[in-house]
Amino acid sequence: MNDRPERRGEFDLISRYFAPLAAGYPGSFGLRDDAAVIAPDPGCELVVTADAIVAGVHFLAGDPADDVARKLLRVSLSDLAAKGARPLGYVITTAWPRDLPEDWIAGFAAGLADDQPRFGVSLLGGDTVSTDGPTCLSLTAFGQVPVGRMLRRNGARAGDRIMVSGTIGDAGAGLALLKGDAGGLEPAARDFLVDRYRRPQPRNGLGPALLEVASSCIDVSDGLLADLAHLCAESGTAGEVHGDRVPLSPARRGFGNPQAAWTAGDDYELLFTVAPDKAEAAFAVAAAQGVPVTDIGEMTAGNGVRIVDGEGRDVTPRRLGYVHF
Amino acid sequence: MNDRPERRGEFDLISRYFAPLAAGYPGSFGLRDDAAVIAPDPGCELVVTADAIVAGVHFLAGDPADDVARKLLRVSLSDLAAKGARPLGYVITTAWPRDLPEDWIAGFAAGLADDQPRFGVSLLGGDTVSTDGPTCLSLTAFGQVPVGRMLRRNGARAGDRIMVSGTIGDAGAGLALLKGDAGGLEPAARDFLVDRYRRPQPRNGLGPALLEVASSCIDVSDGLLADLAHLCAESGTAGEVHGDRVPLSPARRGFGNPQAAWTAGDDYELLFTVAPDKAEAAFAVAAAQGVPVTDIGEMTAGNGVRIVDGEGRDVTPRRLGYVHF
Repeated sequence: MNDRPERRGEFDLISRYFAPLAAGYPGSFGLRDDAAVIAPDPGCELVVTADAIVAGVHFLAGDPADDVARKLLRVSLSDLAAKGARPLGYVITTAWPRDLPEDWIAGFAAGLADDQPRFGVSLLGGDTVSTDGPTCLSLTAFGQVPVGRMLRRNGARAGDRIMVSGTIGDAGAGLALLKGDAGGLEPAARDFLVDRYRRPQPRNGLGPALLEVASSCIDVSDGLLADLAHLCAESGTAGEVHGDRVPLSPARRGFGNPQAAWTAGDDYELLFTVAPDKAEAAFAVAAAQGVPVTDIGEMTAGNGVRIVDGEGRDVTPRRLGYVHF
Repeated sequence: MNDRPERRGEFDLISRYFAPLAAGYPGSFGLRDDAAVIAPDPGCELVVTADAIVAGVHFLAGDPADDVARKLLRVSLSDLAAKGARPLGYVITTAWPRDLPEDWIAGFAAGLADDQPRFGVSLLGGDTVSTDGPTCLSLTAFGQVPVGRMLRRNGARAGDRIMVSGTIGDAGAGLALLKGDAGGLEPAARDFLVDRYRRPQPRNGLGPALLEVASSCIDVSDGLLADLAHLCAESGTAGEVHGDRVPLSPARRGFGNPQAAWTAGDDYELLFTVAPDKAEAAFAVAAAQGVPVTDIGEMTAGNGVRIVDGEGRDVTPRRLGYVHF
């Protein structure tokens, strides 16, 4: 007897492209059992975060399949970093158009395979279906933190320093370049910015290190000011950023219009707050991770965010961030 | 300052329809933090299962929104039941067409709200995006089992009894009726079968009770014979079913063509195997849960599945199950 003639397509795709991604994790049972097991280390709890992306909305039709996979995974890993969680694994569900070339699926899986060892994660399980519409992908990622210690958005207090990792606005400039903005940049600078858009580098080393020092944390996905606004709203504080302290890369400076960096999305840097007496320790833990962090302002009483120029003038833009939805 | 003018649509939908579903679970942080925490009880591990469904492929365009929600949730709860896991919660990602009436989303959330207390689960988190294509929904469910005890597909041995809960073929007949098959049934019988298709009743009481007695388990989603074939393939056994023992409801018997029940999908009953010396105990634990179970055959040496009639003749159909993909 032929044991499973039905749903050949689904089983074939899973065994060919996805089962190898689960081979390193015994609790996945090789994707042969419709469920996986996972448990946090003693004294820890799991942190769970889910993201969905759709072709034509969250990625460009021409984006390489492996980069789409990396971005989907890394965006969730960045959420874990912002929670101070150490990544463990992920489950994925995919809805593929029936006419999607199998090469695209192979490239997608190759992107995941390439990233898994980089971030210490394995595929645990998932589901593969077909759709009459655009590719629709959903990923749920698992990390762990000591019980009760997850970094939250609501822990900032007036007087806390506002800090951000890395540089801001690179991904937004990279997206503008992909959309046809000439930019007048050297090829190397252009490639750097496009790569920052296509291959975000989640701060999974820094995130868990911040558990000891940060009072709140978020990753910069909607935009520096928009995400700071989320921290302020949840913490019941206001935030004031000094525009000239926002860290820009050399390539981003060459792109011009530095103010646009404040509201550009997709940087996946960590934006966090630190009580003043822990500021020095925060710089030290970041340095130990090899990650530059910059003090860009302070939390104050009140609500909302503002950004000021070198003379203290309010230069807050009307729109704080990027519309994904 | 307006704190989050961007992505108004997403935040509105989440706070209006989904945050109430998370209110009962502290680790969801009210869906205000982009991540949730979850931990199994001491001595337990989490069981994770993911399912995706797409409008036009997995549900009918005219299906009530609350039933689509229930089915999405219950299909995953049935996966947990088949693993012997006690349900804890779930995360959901939704891609809605931009022109989907908000009423549909409200109905979808109402279906989840209605089912949550029934199955003892809460929403933990998720993501809401828009799509230019059909509605695309993904759900990842969490349950728990004692460490190392998850029911598997690969534990059946030659000589084990094959048992199934409830009745088989109701959902397939219900789907046929919805697609226009007149069926010549009384309205009550018709309603029963349609309800069995639209509102599967996962066996979350029986599943964990089977941990003590079953050697393998799967839920009947692709079809009785197709799912038995999965058990056989993973266990390295053959399975022989007695066609006249396959339990049919009175309504299903009235529908005719009993052989079609063997290959119809979507019943979400539990199909499990039991060593002969545990058969009596299996009936006892099922009775304690108030769930009828039927001994329909036996695992044998070899591979593949066959179904025989009252005279022992092989009446195995060429196609064992239902094609979802």
